[in-house]
Amino acid sequence: MTDPDLHASPFPRYSWPGGKTSAFCFTVDVDAESPYLWGRKDAVPDALIGQMEQRLFGPRTGIWRLLDLLDRHAMKGTFFVPGLVAENHPALLPAFVARGHEVGLHGYFHEVVADIQDDEFVRALDESFAIFARQIGAKPTGFRSPAWEMTPFMLAELKRRDLYDSSLMGFDHPYTIDGVTEIPVQWAIDDAIYFKFVGSGADRWAPSSQTGVLDSWLDEWDVLKRERGLFMLTVHDWISGRAGRIRMLERLLESIANDPAVWIATVGEVARHHRSLGDGFSVTSRVPDAIGARRFKGAQ
Amino acid sequence: MTDPDLHASPFPRYSWPGGKTSAFCFTVDVDAESPYLWGRKDAVPDALIGQMEQRLFGPRTGIWRLLDLLDRHAMKGTFFVPGLVAENHPALLPAFVARGHEVGLHGYFHEVVADIQDDEFVRALDESFAIFARQIGAKPTGFRSPAWEMTPFMLAELKRRDLYDSSLMGFDHPYTIDGVTEIPVQWAIDDAIYFKFVGSGADRWAPSSQTGVLDSWLDEWDVLKRERGLFMLTVHDWISGRAGRIRMLERLLESIANDPAVWIATVGEVARHHRSLGDGFSVTSRVPDAIGARRFKGAQ
Amino acid sequence: MTDPDLHASPFPRYSWPGGKTSAFCFTVDVDAESPYLWGRKDAVPDALIGQMEQRLFGPRTGIWRLLDLLDRHAMKGTFFVPGLVAENHPALLPAFVARGHEVGLHGYFHEVVADIQDDEFVRALDESFAIFARQIGAKPTGFRSPAWEMTPFMLAELKRRDLYDSSLMGFDHPYTIDGVTEIPVQWAIDDAIYFKFVGSGADRWAPSSQTGVLDSWLDEWDVLKRERGLFMLTVHDWISGRAGRIRMLERLLESIANDPAVWIATVGEVARHHRSLGDGFSVTSRVPDAIGARRFKGAQ
Amino acid sequence: MTDPDLHASPFPRYSWPGGKTSAFCFTVDVDAESPYLWGRKDAVPDALIGQMEQRLFGPRTGIWRLLDLLDRHAMKGTFFVPGLVAENHPALLPAFVARGHEVGLHGYFHEVVADIQDDEFVRALDESFAIFARQIGAKPTGFRSPAWEMTPFMLAELKRRDLYDSSLMGFDHPYTIDGVTEIPVQWAIDDAIYFKFVGSGADRWAPSSQTGVLDSWLDEWDVLKRERGLFMLTVHDWISGRAGRIRMLERLLESIANDPAVWIATVGEVARHHRSLGDGFSVTSRVPDAIGARRFKGAQ
Repeated sequence: MTDPDLHASPFPRYSWPGGKTSAFCFTVDVDAESPYLWGRKDAVPDALIGQMEQRLFGPRTGIWRLLDLLDRHAMKGTFFVPGLVAENHPALLPAFVARGHEVGLHGYFHEVVADIQDDEFVRALDESFAIFARQIGAKPTGFRSPAWEMTPFMLAELKRRDLYDSSLMGFDHPYTIDGVTEIPVQWAIDDAIYFKFVGSGADRWAPSSQTGVLDSWLDEWDVLKRERGLFMLTVHDWISGRAGRIRMLERLLESIANDPAVWIATVGEVARHHRSLGDGFSVTSRVPDAIGARRFKGAQ
Repeated sequence: MTDPDLHASPFPRYSWPGGKTSAFCFTVDVDAESPYLWGRKDAVPDALIGQMEQRLFGPRTGIWRLLDLLDRHAMKGTFFVPGLVAENHPALLPAFVARGHEVGLHGYFHEVVADIQDDEFVRALDESFAIFARQIGAKPTGFRSPAWEMTPFMLAELKRRDLYDSSLMGFDHPYTIDGVTEIPVQWAIDDAIYFKFVGSGADRWAPSSQTGVLDSWLDEWDVLKRERGLFMLTVHDWISGRAGRIRMLERLLESIANDPAVWIATVGEVARHHRSLGDGFSVTSRVPDAIGARRFKGAQ
Repeated sequence: MTDPDLHASPFPRYSWPGGKTSAFCFTVDVDAESPYLWGRKDAVPDALIGQMEQRLFGPRTGIWRLLDLLDRHAMKGTFFVPGLVAENHPALLPAFVARGHEVGLHGYFHEVVADIQDDEFVRALDESFAIFARQIGAKPTGFRSPAWEMTPFMLAELKRRDLYDSSLMGFDHPYTIDGVTEIPVQWAIDDAIYFKFVGSGADRWAPSSQTGVLDSWLDEWDVLKRERGLFMLTVHDWISGRAGRIRMLERLLESIANDPAVWIATVGEVARHHRSLGDGFSVTSRVPDAIGARRFKGAQ
Repeated sequence: MTDPDLHASPFPRYSWPGGKTSAFCFTVDVDAESPYLWGRKDAVPDALIGQMEQRLFGPRTGIWRLLDLLDRHAMKGTFFVPGLVAENHPALLPAFVARGHEVGLHGYFHEVVADIQDDEFVRALDESFAIFARQIGAKPTGFRSPAWEMTPFMLAELKRRDLYDSSLMGFDHPYTIDGVTEIPVQWAIDDAIYFKFVGSGADRWAPSSQTGVLDSWLDEWDVLKRERGLFMLTVHDWISGRAGRIRMLERLLESIANDPAVWIATVGEVARHHRSLGDGFSVTSRVPDAIGARRFKGAQ
């Protein structure tokens, strides 16, 4: 009665290597104090140290728990590190590399895209490359945007430098946008939206129940693996390095890591695989249309 | 001791066809990028593409998963499609029709009712009809208001065109308002209020636990079926097309679709049934009273 | 080691009649459209009918389901009804009385206390008494404040009229404040804070999981019954008259109503009991101190 | 493959006394009416008593339930009491001491740190010491900041007076900051962020499910005990003294108190232990950097 060949998605199912039917990336956005400092860039200076201490829990304790968690599950992850965080905590990049993980770019000051001009984005990339070179003698191959926003200019700049991107949500498997390899993220499987809480009247909601979030993530996984999707988990040093979230992540990894059909890989490995597939899943970025101008014309 | 005949609801219990005791509609508001564009109609243009990509996940992937879900349960749904979305994604309307589903109107730009004048509503209907005619050669018989708001003018215009409405919440079974057949919606069984999340500081709450929402929906169903009600499920392409929500919807459909006492129908079929029942459950719309003027008079 | 006699609460445990160790009141704040109209008292008139329909679900359907629920559990409740709602829906007060329940005052326009002057409160009481007299020929003995706020003036006015109050939270059993019998409410066992959702961008959070709320309410009950407390359940016609909440309330009542140690009573019955106990649990109302003035003096 | 010795946290695992592998503190921030009064310090006076009654539930009933709960589990806690609360409720400090608990400082008016100058902090300490001396003839040894914020000046002042602090979140075991012993708190195991609800349109979210929060707290405990951490529970008299939260706390204590490897101690005992360990886990406070100034320089 229905004709799936004619009336189905124009995009085929995604292909994974080595007989795998889905993929899993464990990624850490190692923000530490950087978003707080960025958010205060125009603020009157004060001497409050509460939020600094909350966030410094990440480099002091949280990040090491996450590293140990990955070791216990023999998993390699990808750590996106703002330049400022690498500078302020010089033990981090060398430790990530020494323990076998991928490191990627995450802005210099964790610059929020809507706040900056194109040239500041370019300078942030340049400066971050310099820090990575100094600290680990290596050049990262991937970028994740602070707060997960992008512009066509940023995509063009990533393409010029042959970097993959991991900041957009247009599919739940790898794709290509404006010629850039995109390994997509998703709000629903990010820890910060559920668990970030900083006090001082700045929060709009309480932390979610970990049980409820874990159930939702396992549901996500159930369907992603049969739809040949990618589970792109994103956690943060100072949020998921807390004890309760480590427990929740263990439960998640126990479910996912033992599935023989899943390819557990770094984002860079997934990006290389996607490039090997050729031109499928390619789209062009769309900036918001000026609906105001069309509003009366279109409706006439 | 109590006298239910004298002191009960003035409205009798609802009647369903063919010995059924309740009904279920699966509806999709195929919003894709349209509410975001409408919300930015007066904004300074920018080049941010994050929210566009989030929403384009709907037409690229999400909507097809929802169609496959309906096929797996041999269910026909109703898809309310803004004119702009049909134009931007011309594969959609033909696919919905080819796969046996109903299509309905949902504004042209997903115009929020409080933002527009009466004439813009009329033009949006005209323009949408033209698009539906061009793309599928058919005239929809039903309307659902963007963001579920209505005015007496809109009801009168729907009546003039002999369209049913599915935007109000005055009962949890079909009714008639200002002479228009109303197949009611309900916030509690809409996916967006629980799961919509867009980032950029625009959200007021985190996504709910899917387990908790599913439990609440099954409770709703338990009582609706014994109260002879209608379960009007509403989901969105870019929200419930995500993997985790597909899993949740499967669980819901497994419970509901196997119940022999439920009539699973499109909204249009339910509207035709309601019209066949005659004049019961008929109410007149009420605009808010001017309480300010009555305030001192009434209390004197 | 500790001396509970010397270093315990100055208030003894509460006493219930007939060997009961705790009490349960089922109360309905029959708000229907009144808070919406009050909230718009200074607004520019508009023709939007969505919220009116949402709220009119209460008098049309929801309230009758709540009445049937009470009948199924052979329970008598207390219905607090704004004058405006009684006028707009004249079937309500007679039905509540005919089915054996208590009716109480709830303002005329559901006036929010912070918005009105003392004389408007007095006029709202006068006008409400007149409506109750006209519709059911009886004089209510209790008052519940819209939005659960009070002032010393209001308490004095209630005392002058010999009305009990049910609007404050200073204990979780009956008490006396400024000489007025107070049968206290509590946010944690009110339905509106968890489930009210109206759309139009007016909400700050999504509806809670019913499973989670029910669990919390049963926990509340577990300890209240051993602490000799009063479980003052408050629900609303247009919120808890919805199918899913009826299911949740059934589960709650199944737990509570079968407990032989609980006294299920109307608020008026509880108030009469409290008055029979004499002067215990008596406190004086406290308006907020002017801390600003004391700030430097006190800290010198 | 990885080298944990070279590439692990610079901080060793924490050491607990007597063969214990973790610790648990039950702390109560006895706020009662003080934060409400502080928040209104610049407000136009009004006669509303609702929030006062809500909060006075704490000294009247809630605090005594918490004391009884501790007695049932033979546990000693730490009660941080603002000077104003001790003055308004003179039964509290003597009862805490008589029942064997520690008492600590919590500001005079529950002053929010961002609102006050350094000299006001000093005066609040002086005044609070005077009240504690008058009421119980003893000098507290610890301080917890209202709303959990600190400045380097405050730390220096605590050091001068040889007080421990319990307001920061830089680790989840004791540490030393600017030479002050810090016994850290954590938002995730505070009751207020989940359960505080005051009405009057002031709330941004509904109370959480107690079941969900308890599950999250037990997860936190699972990992803290294996990571040699400290579970610093913080509750409030008027929030967790409510019946439902007492039930939840019972369930938590049943899990934790029976674990032979946990050291259940007052915060003061933990502080003394930490001082006995010498100089490990010592950090310097960091005020937020002026990123604005560095923004272009750093990125050039």
